[in-house]
Amino acid sequence: MSDPLVLFMPSGKRGRFAKGTSVLDAARSLGVYVESVCGGRATCGRCQIEVQEGNFAKHKIVSSLDHISPKGPKEERYERVRGLPASRRLSCSATIEGDLVIDVPQDVVINAQVVRKKASDRVIDRDAAVHLRYVEVDEPDMHKPLGDLDRMKAALARDWGYDRLDVDFALVPQVQAILRAGKWAVTAAIHKDREDGPATIVGLWPGLKNEAFGIACDIGSTTIAMHLVSLLSGRIAASSGAQNPQIRFGEDLMSRVSYVMMNPDGREAMTGAVRQAINGLIDKVCAEAGAERTDILDMVFVGNPVMHHLFLGIDPTELGGAPFALAASGALSLKAAEIGIDANPGARVYVLPCIAGHVGADAAAATLSEGPYRQDAMMLLVDVGTNAEIVLGNKTRTVACSSPTGPAFEGAEISGGQRAAPGAIERVRIDPVTLEPRYRVIGVEPWSDEPGFAEAAGSTGVTGICGSGIIEVIAEMYLAGIISEDGVVDGSLAARSPRIVENGRTFSYVVKEGAPRIAITQNDVRAIQLAKAALYAGVKLLMQKQGVDHVDTIRFAGAFGSFIDPKYAMVLGLIPDCELSEVKAVGNAAGDGALMALLNRGHRREIEDTVRRIEKIETALEPDFQALFVAAMAIPNKLDPFPKLSAEVTLPPRKILTDAEGGGGRRGGRRGR
Amino acid sequence: MSDPLVLFMPSGKRGRFAKGTSVLDAARSLGVYVESVCGGRATCGRCQIEVQEGNFAKHKIVSSLDHISPKGPKEERYERVRGLPASRRLSCSATIEGDLVIDVPQDVVINAQVVRKKASDRVIDRDAAVHLRYVEVDEPDMHKPLGDLDRMKAALARDWGYDRLDVDFALVPQVQAILRAGKWAVTAAIHKDREDGPATIVGLWPGLKNEAFGIACDIGSTTIAMHLVSLLSGRIAASSGAQNPQIRFGEDLMSRVSYVMMNPDGREAMTGAVRQAINGLIDKVCAEAGAERTDILDMVFVGNPVMHHLFLGIDPTELGGAPFALAASGALSLKAAEIGIDANPGARVYVLPCIAGHVGADAAAATLSEGPYRQDAMMLLVDVGTNAEIVLGNKTRTVACSSPTGPAFEGAEISGGQRAAPGAIERVRIDPVTLEPRYRVIGVEPWSDEPGFAEAAGSTGVTGICGSGIIEVIAEMYLAGIISEDGVVDGSLAARSPRIVENGRTFSYVVKEGAPRIAITQNDVRAIQLAKAALYAGVKLLMQKQGVDHVDTIRFAGAFGSFIDPKYAMVLGLIPDCELSEVKAVGNAAGDGALMALLNRGHRREIEDTVRRIEKIETALEPDFQALFVAAMAIPNKLDPFPKLSAEVTLPPRKILTDAEGGGGRRGGRRGR
Repeated sequence: MSDPLVLFMPSGKRGRFAKGTSVLDAARSLGVYVESVCGGRATCGRCQIEVQEGNFAKHKIVSSLDHISPKGPKEERYERVRGLPASRRLSCSATIEGDLVIDVPQDVVINAQVVRKKASDRVIDRDAAVHLRYVEVDEPDMHKPLGDLDRMKAALARDWGYDRLDVDFALVPQVQAILRAGKWAVTAAIHKDREDGPATIVGLWPGLKNEAFGIACDIGSTTIAMHLVSLLSGRIAASSGAQNPQIRFGEDLMSRVSYVMMNPDGREAMTGAVRQAINGLIDKVCAEAGAERTDILDMVFVGNPVMHHLFLGIDPTELGGAPFALAASGALSLKAAEIGIDANPGARVYVLPCIAGHVGADAAAATLSEGPYRQDAMMLLVDVGTNAEIVLGNKTRTVACSSPTGPAFEGAEISGGQRAAPGAIERVRIDPVTLEPRYRVIGVEPWSDEPGFAEAAGSTGVTGICGSGIIEVIAEMYLAGIISEDGVVDGSLAARSPRIVENGRTFSYVVKEGAPRIAITQNDVRAIQLAKAALYAGVKLLMQKQGVDHVDTIRFAGAFGSFIDPKYAMVLGLIPDCELSEVKAVGNAAGDGALMALLNRGHRREIEDTVRRIEKIETALEPDFQALFVAAMAIPNKLDPFPKLSAEVTLPPRKILTDAEGGGGRRGGRRGR
Repeated sequence: MSDPLVLFMPSGKRGRFAKGTSVLDAARSLGVYVESVCGGRATCGRCQIEVQEGNFAKHKIVSSLDHISPKGPKEERYERVRGLPASRRLSCSATIEGDLVIDVPQDVVINAQVVRKKASDRVIDRDAAVHLRYVEVDEPDMHKPLGDLDRMKAALARDWGYDRLDVDFALVPQVQAILRAGKWAVTAAIHKDREDGPATIVGLWPGLKNEAFGIACDIGSTTIAMHLVSLLSGRIAASSGAQNPQIRFGEDLMSRVSYVMMNPDGREAMTGAVRQAINGLIDKVCAEAGAERTDILDMVFVGNPVMHHLFLGIDPTELGGAPFALAASGALSLKAAEIGIDANPGARVYVLPCIAGHVGADAAAATLSEGPYRQDAMMLLVDVGTNAEIVLGNKTRTVACSSPTGPAFEGAEISGGQRAAPGAIERVRIDPVTLEPRYRVIGVEPWSDEPGFAEAAGSTGVTGICGSGIIEVIAEMYLAGIISEDGVVDGSLAARSPRIVENGRTFSYVVKEGAPRIAITQNDVRAIQLAKAALYAGVKLLMQKQGVDHVDTIRFAGAFGSFIDPKYAMVLGLIPDCELSEVKAVGNAAGDGALMALLNRGHRREIEDTVRRIEKIETALEPDFQALFVAAMAIPNKLDPFPKLSAEVTLPPRKILTDAEGGGGRRGGRRGR
């Protein structure tokens, strides 16, 4: 009779194992990741699994609780002392006695207080670079005068298979006391970034230490976003964000580079500011999760090239002009202490690679998160800031570029523009007959023409118009015929509506009278045209490189992408034609990518390899770019024209339309007109 | 016709190479170590060789200057600009055109001012852990947006074969400026401690950097000895020594351990003191050699276990009592900056392994230097301090122990004892008829009974008796019949000589009258008996373990060994019988071993493997040790008696007798009687 068949879910990996094999050993031999700190002593509880009962005919397995060993004394002790859900077993103690379907739960929670919420629905296969390893160390013996450290290394080799272990020197003077405090039982944190690379003891605690955390952090020009994550369960224990304090040195990236060029201490000041903010955020997430700073053992940081350089203490001046030379483009590994980040003294830092001088580690992280290179469909991934970082690709080939959109999409350089904040107009509709606008303001529930608007807006008032509002108002102006395809405000309409007003030699459209008066000037339209032309020309250039005339899916990363309506983005000609259902805002994809690299070191190699393979297109060197840019100035544009969409759709605030809600995308729109 | 045959001397390695092969490539392919920084650009001058002309019939080679290519333009330019001795060629430029005998000189000196003297005649095969590598780096290119660091790594991979290079993070923010200062040519210092281990960029300079230094340092309880060595030529640029400032916390090891136990800040104070002294010595050797601290890139430290722990900031308390547990016994690798040693910020530190709780990294270094495990002869290696560290072995097997000699050999706990310093009696002869002594004093040329002694000794006077003087006076007392084999001072002789005086219930022998009066008391004799019995019992125990009744060679390491006369050591029974010509003082063998580990990383692996294989004997656990100890109290001893030597030999001060001078060792001595 053959050995029992065991199927692990959700991975679907399967194999036959001799009766009496522990479920943990079986999982490991198949490469199914099951955490364990105590090394099979049934004390850490990290290796919990569930047995699925039933006849899994498709897999030819009948799985039953009778096919797993009954709880032994060690497992019963764990259950008594620590508690174990009825359906759960410790895989280090439970042995295979017949065919089994084993479920590896994603939520093995030991210290419940640290698990509060989740930042993302993504389930990330775990294979962290730092592991906790409990060992019982031989006591000193005059017959075998190996040192404390050396006996501990021998125990780690014996129980966990580490052949050659380095040790952070700072721990060496502490080993004696920790071993004695733990009565010769200790938990070592071992950092091993590569399967074939060196392993290093980076932390040490007496007795069993059963939790360790990591930090995933996206350093944006405007905001810094951070997750505190259990390296053992993969659960997000706390998330927080803060404004990037470098804003006081300059709003956008180039003004910060200029600040460094103009001020001898500028680089140092900005480096200090961002590190201080990050330390403040670490305080915050630790307090929220009830974790200690010294529990943080691994960190992943991403950011655009200027943020990347300033955070690491590198002068970003070279990024301010051609050839836009990065000081370091590859992934970097360092210690948190080397850059003044306050965590465990042995905590490691991994920084994702940058793709090019204007396409940073944040774009690399978003690429890792969305994975164009993992799929057959041709995916367009766009992150719009002062520069648009654009990635286009599929399994076969991935290309990337950045395009100088300028800050117009962020509300800068627009007469009534402002950041997305309470008081900002975020949605606009224009009646194509009366040309009267109605709008919606951040923080205010009713639209401007609905009852209760004035009361609701009362205290803050209406202060300006933010990026998504600008996109919408200009698209609506076009749909209402106020501006032509060339973006000229039609002055003749001043006769028909008081909303059209003369403004020197051109005309403006008044969205709101009073103080402040908010109008879209001809210059504002031109600014948005320039920005969208830059974005579109960049996208089109990459499409040319790929030899495709359409994309299968579009992913908008970042804050801008979360708030704009993809329909209006298409009306304006920001993005190429695509099934509306395939256009998605993915939020902080860079942060998600950082999280993936934190929880699975394989993702580090994956993005390093991917970045090496990505073809980097420098728009400034492309002879076609200028022509594409000029052609993309028109609305929608002259490159990829598509029928106008109906504007008669009321969009819910800050939510991307699904097909069903929005009327089926482009084709639906055509029918609706 | 077959390819030309090339023989490299002094290694004797040989091979056939196609005409046109550079001599450097040929050397490398045979594993002949020839330094090169510039990578074949004929600019560093490190790869010099000489062609030997003549008919080397034994090797079937006729070597001629016609068989090497004439100097090309690059080599001529080097000769013009830097100078090249007439016989020398640059092996990177010279190509093989016929059979050749090539001499690889050991003294390729580029910066002459740093080569002053040599500490040791040993020629150490060089294979340092740190190398300088010059590269020319591609300039930034918008088409290939690799970062500066990444292009530099690519150049190091291309020109020097480094596949995966780590970089000290502290260098990352400096790469931009250094590359530009060097006009895209830089020299990287690359640390690679193991052939199969990681390689790390630890230093970086613009242009060609053509010198790098290492430090080899022996931290003794009393003195710290340091060499500054060129890592490129292997030459010692400067050597210096200083008193260990920890002496103010306690004269000997155990009093320093006690100080730590009694004072909360004791460990920190002593760690700070020794590190400060080492930094002071680095200043001194750098000044002497005209080197910069930042030129120091690698360091090797050795010391006994207590010095080892205190230097590394480890509490030595555990070493003060059974089981004498070392915090760390294996070799350690760290950065100089981690322990406050001021050198290049990327400088690495290697600390040799300790053998056991009382047999330290200094004993390991002495073992590496003298190499009992490399030879067939059974070698006894002894380093006497407060503990004697004893190693006995040959190719087949090596055993080691320490034995508690106490400080008597260093002049402590002896009534008239003092350290070896001006004013100390260092040699003594006693007339066997009159029992009158004559003696010699450190810093004074004439013996005490020779003309001019009083004048020469005048200012300092005679202040006490040091270790070598005590050994000699007690041996001479025995040879003159003043003490018995059991060490009892014969009071009946008081009738014959005023030098024998009553002292309570025992008798003393007065070496010098006046102030200070220097006498050897019965207690002094007992103290020396205890010390020598401990040493001898330790040696005998190891001989028992090896199953041998004699040793082939004896090596005395350390200061004590340099000053005592091996003949008297045998008279007293400190060491076993051995051909006198095979007894050698080897000076600071620990320092020599440190030097070897500095210049050749292979020696690091060699001593690590050796220490793992050495059988450690703990005397306290050996049932036989006490009996051996008691039996060894007698003079010479009851274990290994040998005929008394003639005392009628005048020994030159501070020089070990050779066979010719001393009369042929034991057998000669026997004849002389």
